[in-house]
Amino acid sequence: MPAFERHLFVCTNERKPGHPRGCCAGQASEAVREQLKNVVAANGLKGRVRINSAGCLDQCEHGPTLVVYPEGVWYGFVTLADVDEIVQSHLIGGLPVKRLQLDATCLNTPKCPHRTAGP
Amino acid sequence: MPAFERHLFVCTNERKPGHPRGCCAGQASEAVREQLKNVVAANGLKGRVRINSAGCLDQCEHGPTLVVYPEGVWYGFVTLADVDEIVQSHLIGGLPVKRLQLDATCLNTPKCPHRTAGP
Repeated sequence: MPAFERHLFVCTNERKPGHPRGCCAGQASEAVREQLKNVVAANGLKGRVRINSAGCLDQCEHGPTLVVYPEGVWYGFVTLADVDEIVQSHLIGGLPVKRLQLDATCLNTPKCPHRTAGP
Repeated sequence: MPAFERHLFVCTNERKPGHPRGCCAGQASEAVREQLKNVVAANGLKGRVRINSAGCLDQCEHGPTLVVYPEGVWYGFVTLADVDEIVQSHLIGGLPVKRLQLDATCLNTPKCPHRTAGP
């Protein structure tokens, strides 16, 4: 097999309860990862698309957060109900799910309107 | 800040001792990740280059294994002594370190000559 066609990383970082930035694990990101893995396998994509857990992706206010490479598409606030659409539209069809993409004003910036806790 | 210019994932997966495929954690991948993080910060790349830990990248026989996106360059058998070169040549200079790249005959294949334990 060649390199993965798509490599998806789900933030599963966990912080102590009450941390001002929150964390993806606190937003059930592990369940999202598990479901993505199952749906990818059920669609015969194993070996072509890899679903990985990752440490803190530093987009904590938008959890569960995930990123798809090589295209570098970032998703936030992903729920179990979104998994099928991400797999069908993006991972199979090549069309990112616009409504779940993190806005440029949110991605990787302390000025993000969701971030109230400072950098 | 825009999206990360480069996003590096270091496998820090840990298996029980004696597992036939081994694991990256058993090859000191956490120390490599820590050192990458420190050298990236010391070179002022914080916010532009992100160093992440990741779950199993499924290239276990070549640990510590890491992958750099968006270009999708895979490295294997990385040691602390290799960190400066990866940062200077690849993450700053844009030139992957050829001698550390996983061969196409090794990447993502059960037929890899390093894999003796079966799929």
